[in-house]
Amino acid sequence: MTSPLRLGIAGLGTVGVGIVRIIQKNGALLESRAGRPIEIVAVSARSKEKDRGIDLSAYAWEDDPVALAKRDDIDVFVEVMGGHEGPAKDATEAAISAGKDVVSANKALLAIHGQALAEAAEEKGHVIRFEAAVAGGIPVVKALTEGLAANEITRVMGVMNGSCNYILTRMEDAGLSYQEVFDEANALGYLEADPELDVGGIDAGHKLALLSSIAFGTQVDFDAVELEGIGSITIEDIRQAADMDYKIKLLGVAQMTGRGLEQRMSPCLVPDRSPLGQLQGGTNMVVLEGDAVTQVVLRGPGAGEGPTASAVMGDVMDIARGVRISTFGQPAKTLRNARAARAAVPAPYYLRMQLVDKPGALAKVAAALGEAGISIDRMRQYGHEDTNAPVLIVTHKTTRTALDEALSRFESTGVVTGTPVAIRIEAV
Amino acid sequence: MTSPLRLGIAGLGTVGVGIVRIIQKNGALLESRAGRPIEIVAVSARSKEKDRGIDLSAYAWEDDPVALAKRDDIDVFVEVMGGHEGPAKDATEAAISAGKDVVSANKALLAIHGQALAEAAEEKGHVIRFEAAVAGGIPVVKALTEGLAANEITRVMGVMNGSCNYILTRMEDAGLSYQEVFDEANALGYLEADPELDVGGIDAGHKLALLSSIAFGTQVDFDAVELEGIGSITIEDIRQAADMDYKIKLLGVAQMTGRGLEQRMSPCLVPDRSPLGQLQGGTNMVVLEGDAVTQVVLRGPGAGEGPTASAVMGDVMDIARGVRISTFGQPAKTLRNARAARAAVPAPYYLRMQLVDKPGALAKVAAALGEAGISIDRMRQYGHEDTNAPVLIVTHKTTRTALDEALSRFESTGVVTGTPVAIRIEAV
Repeated sequence: MTSPLRLGIAGLGTVGVGIVRIIQKNGALLESRAGRPIEIVAVSARSKEKDRGIDLSAYAWEDDPVALAKRDDIDVFVEVMGGHEGPAKDATEAAISAGKDVVSANKALLAIHGQALAEAAEEKGHVIRFEAAVAGGIPVVKALTEGLAANEITRVMGVMNGSCNYILTRMEDAGLSYQEVFDEANALGYLEADPELDVGGIDAGHKLALLSSIAFGTQVDFDAVELEGIGSITIEDIRQAADMDYKIKLLGVAQMTGRGLEQRMSPCLVPDRSPLGQLQGGTNMVVLEGDAVTQVVLRGPGAGEGPTASAVMGDVMDIARGVRISTFGQPAKTLRNARAARAAVPAPYYLRMQLVDKPGALAKVAAALGEAGISIDRMRQYGHEDTNAPVLIVTHKTTRTALDEALSRFESTGVVTGTPVAIRIEAV
Repeated sequence: MTSPLRLGIAGLGTVGVGIVRIIQKNGALLESRAGRPIEIVAVSARSKEKDRGIDLSAYAWEDDPVALAKRDDIDVFVEVMGGHEGPAKDATEAAISAGKDVVSANKALLAIHGQALAEAAEEKGHVIRFEAAVAGGIPVVKALTEGLAANEITRVMGVMNGSCNYILTRMEDAGLSYQEVFDEANALGYLEADPELDVGGIDAGHKLALLSSIAFGTQVDFDAVELEGIGSITIEDIRQAADMDYKIKLLGVAQMTGRGLEQRMSPCLVPDRSPLGQLQGGTNMVVLEGDAVTQVVLRGPGAGEGPTASAVMGDVMDIARGVRISTFGQPAKTLRNARAARAAVPAPYYLRMQLVDKPGALAKVAAALGEAGISIDRMRQYGHEDTNAPVLIVTHKTTRTALDEALSRFESTGVVTGTPVAIRIEAV
């Protein structure tokens, strides 16, 4: 194949502009590597008039991304609009119906409709690729789908939302509260228009669901991801964790258990000297574990014009080179519908609570844990100035079910005030 | 394609055994992902009788790897014997002549004969893949060739010899001399039969030369890699570096400069809080930098049965799935013959030397640096018990040429005793 690969790009936000820049700047390089030219034929975005700082005059313009998707003169529909319903979904479906390959950066669309879209594309003999949808510039979809293809994957973990990691590390570095850093990040434009997508773990949960599907040969199932955001993390917890040589990260973990597929996106304590613990700011990190490879860690920019466009273009280059691999690593029709397991894998937990300052209070809490079958690794009551005594407990490994039982027993002790904080300690 | 992909495996050492284990254990998984079975048809090794702890009874045996390579009933020749001449080279050439695809873990063979082998294979329309030759289980060849294919690569760096990194970190942790840790590592079987391959930087240099070729579109040129081993690193340098918040690593760096392609494999100081600085023990790390992606860091096991076999099998899975990408990312015939540049990129240097304890000695050294056009960032003379005064200097950025001039001027000062230590400080 030496004919040009012809692209239609839907969306000219940060990522779309980045793609155009790469093709304009590195065109000769792309051609020498792919063995054929990569050409932009047509683009689509909301406003034709907006100055994006790039020259679009050589490309046809479509107001409607669906019309772009159907054009006879494109081979690949590149979807970098975003949104899991509406135009992005309509245009992606139209592209598949029209027999185009699709390269998408749209994690929400794929996490929610990926199974149906992949089945439809594969039915037609076409591919959907989504490297840019997970962890920005890190080629993690490729590493998992292809590089580690001979492994039985045992666990996938990752810090996959740079905004959350920025907030957590900034809280620690500057000694600020969650709300202060949240407001700061929001003002700087670091958060999505709906910030809950970031801080609620939804965006990162979409990414985890996509990696899970590849890792375990299961249908992508975002609804089964147990989500917990970072909104309840306090500077106090960050400091106490640091004091015990841990960092708090919004960590995604997926693993296949005897009881089904466990997918969690929640704040976790990780050792501060581990690669995950050392991850600062907006950088992403994904940890892939397999029976043969043991552990591979990938680190890089999780967002931004260049990195995300690099990932999109990696997929485009694969298509240009004739690579045809199923969207989720095996034909979508063969993906299993896995049972969802909730926190089936036991772990130690970090607990912080306030006790009324009365003799025997600590003993009652310890007894409640014992009754739930949970043993205590470390327990510490620390200095206080009012009538409540702050207490820190690190448990030995326990199940989430047992922990929930203990938390409910705490209520009836009459000595725990407010809601205890419980954060899983993940072995990384 | 649903017909089996038939392998002939030459070499049944650690890696060969690992490949057999993966195929025997994960056969169903491989088939579901590749869409076809992966079968071992025949194997070859020096001794048929040796007990390797695996069942080989289902495979044909060849005493001669060349005969294995030519068998009509294999599609892919898997070369995990090692050695850059002799049987490994003969058999690889035979496989190419016979029209087989080749998967190789042989860094020396490819770093020295890669260009000729790739041209021969591509002439026949076949591929040579070598993920396992670089950084063990880390899918770095794939990340660079495919994932970052749209980037102009600006720099490739890496710690790619686990034995050297083990020695350097063990020296620091245990406070032992190079020779003590070398002997220990050798006794534990951590080093190659010819340890100079490890500690002389040759093995890591082979890997760097392979990555350079992909990164910069140049013919693999191992002879142009500036090699310096770790044999001259002292515990004193490790301690002084740590005191200034640096670690000493055997670091490979390749970058294209205005004066040509610079490839270095040498001890460097890197910030101790950087991912490279934090790398402990036998783990490998590769840093890939490109104009769009900025920086991606990959970390994982650089050797061992499972990880290396995982990399070999990743290549096998690609071939099974119909992926056909040129060995070095573009047709071998189109790779440029780059001019070699020696340390063209300026850097600060760490210098340690002994001065005779006389008034004016330090001034003479400072003057020699000034005459070579090198300015001093930090200089420290520290406590001593004999007639020689140890001095540490960190220079501002300078070229290697200027540094060499300064080192030669030191000799004529008459105040520097012994040979000064000079280690580059790499910005990572």
